[in-house]
Amino acid sequence: MITGKNWIGNQLLGSSSKIFYSSNPKENANLEPAFYQVTTEELEIAVKKAEQAFDSFNGISPLRKASFFSAIKGQLLQNQREILEWYCLESGLSYSRAQSELNRTILQIDQFTELVKENFWREASIDNTDQSVIPQKPDVRKMNIAIGPVVVFGASNFPLAYSTIGGDTISALAAGCPVIVKSHPLHPATGELVANAIIQAAILTSMPDGVFSNLNGLDFSVGEFLVKHPKVKAVAFTGSFEGGMALYKIATNRPEPIPIFAEMGSINPIIICNENIEHYTNDWTTLIADSVANGAGQFCTKPGLIFIIDGKGVVTFIENLKQKIINKNAECMLSEKIYKNYIARKNTHQAKIEIEGIIDFSKGNFASPNVGLTNAVDFLNDDFLIEEVFGPYTLIVRCRHEKELVSCLNKLKGSLTGTVFADLKACQNLKYWLNIMEKKVGRLLLNAVPTGVTVCPSMHHGGPFPATTDSRFTSVGIDGIKRFIRPCTYQNIPDFLLPEELQNKNPLKILRRINGNWTFAEIIS
Amino acid sequence: MITGKNWIGNQLLGSSSKIFYSSNPKENANLEPAFYQVTTEELEIAVKKAEQAFDSFNGISPLRKASFFSAIKGQLLQNQREILEWYCLESGLSYSRAQSELNRTILQIDQFTELVKENFWREASIDNTDQSVIPQKPDVRKMNIAIGPVVVFGASNFPLAYSTIGGDTISALAAGCPVIVKSHPLHPATGELVANAIIQAAILTSMPDGVFSNLNGLDFSVGEFLVKHPKVKAVAFTGSFEGGMALYKIATNRPEPIPIFAEMGSINPIIICNENIEHYTNDWTTLIADSVANGAGQFCTKPGLIFIIDGKGVVTFIENLKQKIINKNAECMLSEKIYKNYIARKNTHQAKIEIEGIIDFSKGNFASPNVGLTNAVDFLNDDFLIEEVFGPYTLIVRCRHEKELVSCLNKLKGSLTGTVFADLKACQNLKYWLNIMEKKVGRLLLNAVPTGVTVCPSMHHGGPFPATTDSRFTSVGIDGIKRFIRPCTYQNIPDFLLPEELQNKNPLKILRRINGNWTFAEIIS
Repeated sequence: MITGKNWIGNQLLGSSSKIFYSSNPKENANLEPAFYQVTTEELEIAVKKAEQAFDSFNGISPLRKASFFSAIKGQLLQNQREILEWYCLESGLSYSRAQSELNRTILQIDQFTELVKENFWREASIDNTDQSVIPQKPDVRKMNIAIGPVVVFGASNFPLAYSTIGGDTISALAAGCPVIVKSHPLHPATGELVANAIIQAAILTSMPDGVFSNLNGLDFSVGEFLVKHPKVKAVAFTGSFEGGMALYKIATNRPEPIPIFAEMGSINPIIICNENIEHYTNDWTTLIADSVANGAGQFCTKPGLIFIIDGKGVVTFIENLKQKIINKNAECMLSEKIYKNYIARKNTHQAKIEIEGIIDFSKGNFASPNVGLTNAVDFLNDDFLIEEVFGPYTLIVRCRHEKELVSCLNKLKGSLTGTVFADLKACQNLKYWLNIMEKKVGRLLLNAVPTGVTVCPSMHHGGPFPATTDSRFTSVGIDGIKRFIRPCTYQNIPDFLLPEELQNKNPLKILRRINGNWTFAEIIS
Repeated sequence: MITGKNWIGNQLLGSSSKIFYSSNPKENANLEPAFYQVTTEELEIAVKKAEQAFDSFNGISPLRKASFFSAIKGQLLQNQREILEWYCLESGLSYSRAQSELNRTILQIDQFTELVKENFWREASIDNTDQSVIPQKPDVRKMNIAIGPVVVFGASNFPLAYSTIGGDTISALAAGCPVIVKSHPLHPATGELVANAIIQAAILTSMPDGVFSNLNGLDFSVGEFLVKHPKVKAVAFTGSFEGGMALYKIATNRPEPIPIFAEMGSINPIIICNENIEHYTNDWTTLIADSVANGAGQFCTKPGLIFIIDGKGVVTFIENLKQKIINKNAECMLSEKIYKNYIARKNTHQAKIEIEGIIDFSKGNFASPNVGLTNAVDFLNDDFLIEEVFGPYTLIVRCRHEKELVSCLNKLKGSLTGTVFADLKACQNLKYWLNIMEKKVGRLLLNAVPTGVTVCPSMHHGGPFPATTDSRFTSVGIDGIKRFIRPCTYQNIPDFLLPEELQNKNPLKILRRINGNWTFAEIIS
């Protein structure tokens, strides 16, 4: 049963008179029940509980943390039917998409469970005392520790993998940070069901009350309160540029600035190298059209700009790509507002350049894929054309020669991904294009599309601004934990008072850097 | 010969009519020659050269980078006599201090030379393609790359180890980032001599013009210009809270925010546990008095607050500590302004609490060590008493019981270090005090003093705000490189187009994470 209330630690509270509803975007119809926006008093309790929980949660053993994560997974699987049904109702996305996103979310939990057991994230480092040098070198040991309570903002386009128990939450919990989720108002019911699973798991495995809270809010003031709160020590956000930057300004301008990681959308440029293009046209256009149109183009990695230099076979390639994109079916977008934004931005393009595709008449927010075509000169003269259009749309930019392409690439801002398609043998400048692209992006692809992010340790999901507010961190993969940890050095502290990770005998059997060398060995004292 | 000009890459320029002089703080007398403040045109060239140098410097081999570093070391040693003489003239610090700081600076260069050769900082990670799963797992590889041109602000109190070729510069260069140093106006001649060494080394080893620049400036506008410049991608600063925060605001509020690491001073609390204190009084007070007074207390790790709970032997301990501190000799401070600030802040304490020590009459900025004494109630009621007094001063806070001590500790802001002195066997609450302290600091010490930072991989020199603007990073030790790198993922890119670090055969023989496991092995394809 969905209560519409807020999980304030292990307590369900909802005393506000301010209520709101989520909506089925296929019908623009409100869904019952109502959700109670969290009150200032409830917010204050949530933060206080998180701070209190930090003391004990931060200190629990790797195995206990792993058992908490396994219990979350168990609860999710046990309740998956209801979760997936609400996911589809609130998001308008398909059941198969919901199922695959749940699988990905479970995979993420599994990977962080392994990480917590393996404990490499501590980056334990030991420099032994050296009495032979003057001044005598002290015993110095270092490892990463949790930064404190973390606030997570769920994403509209990934109700599971980037929301309540998405990559942000699980990486903060893995670090030992209590988490307060600001649930996304487009899927509060899905959020509550997932939060139920986390709270049940926390109770089953005796985690401290306050290790997790799930708060409903329609107003910006809720997020603002959380990010401003002195007891909150870090923030993770996935969403729009405007939303991310508003929170970034708050986090960095508070009396005690705190780290914030905001992932804010991305244009994801593609370069098509035209050597032997006729041999690849069918394969490449199929890949790219799918990547642009699938899921109504509502992915942060959707390619939004495609550059190509004129040459033999290029007109055919462009025509082929355009047809494949516009022949895709309309799909329901996540909300009426997102749908209207898509139409508005597409119309702005249409006033400037040639666009093909079906014109949409609002019918439950179903959007048809469209494709724009322009040339480098017009592209370089219009700052609007380098901005993301969130939805099933991409813009093809024809360049007359390499110099024009270089100018276009230099104009681009940071992106999560950048892609090159090329005939490996025939393309002369491939290394050059890859190098230019590398400076602009967090992930470089060759002859593959950026959508469908593989969750693995080598995946970096981040990128130079404005893709994210800090290109040094990722929100996908186990390295996501680095956002929520800080190193601490222990000097001249006897073995029995050290954390287990740093004790001589290496009781947790972890990989450590000892006097500069990485080893699993223990120290013979 | 000191020219007073700016190294704009490999070119010495100084066309400004705005000049300034450094001063000998022992005599408050200006030193020749004059220094030319960098002009806007010169600043623009320096940034442009840095951006151009980035393309090639970022791509040079580990061995070439290491040879550049060795050449810097060689040039420093070759010119050490002149460097050390100017160091002493401009800083008022002793020749032996200058010598030991040079040794430390050389040690830092050596450690980064090793790091560059070893290449672990790349954190190379490979997840091979897996064709057995659906959807097929692509080949995904990741490593850290340089973030772009970096601006470094030298510190007044470490003309070598935290200035022109200090830890910030060498770690940014190690990452592959060109560096623009804003030379500290208290030691511009030392700065120019060190810059000469770097430029000569860069020319000797054929580094690109613009890999390093050294700029003189008395006005805040110089730093402001650099931190605001769109081509600058990160900033490192060591200095005052006011200076650090002014730059932090600029870096985070520019249209494209950039990472900034500002280390801004620290109160470095000490707790003295009183069990069996009479057995330790002499040893502990000797250590602490040295740590407070040496080098005129001008260290960011100088202990500024000492807490002790009343009990047997405590009065004697306090008396002993006070005497040892005030019996230390006066030493010359770094500048007249720093000296006057010390006197002013000490006088503010004196208006509130009991202070002992010689009253200074300005005589070439020589400052005598002083010590204040207050109780927990007064301490808790006065917000000024938790602020750092930069100089040879510390404040002892007597508490009546544990509860008072806990209140005092909770009031503290973040620090670089926190120290506990205790009888390991007799002290009952030792773990408790260490845990409270750990939350506030970046380095925890037991029965040792925080001054005299050991430069080794396990050293963390950073801490929760306001000690630094980002507790996740260090400015000492090889992990300082993490401030200036960002991960980049390479997906589906054939071996011959990958960076060597990620190629199957592991030609650089580095430690890599392959399918989740750290290994030196190559990949058999």
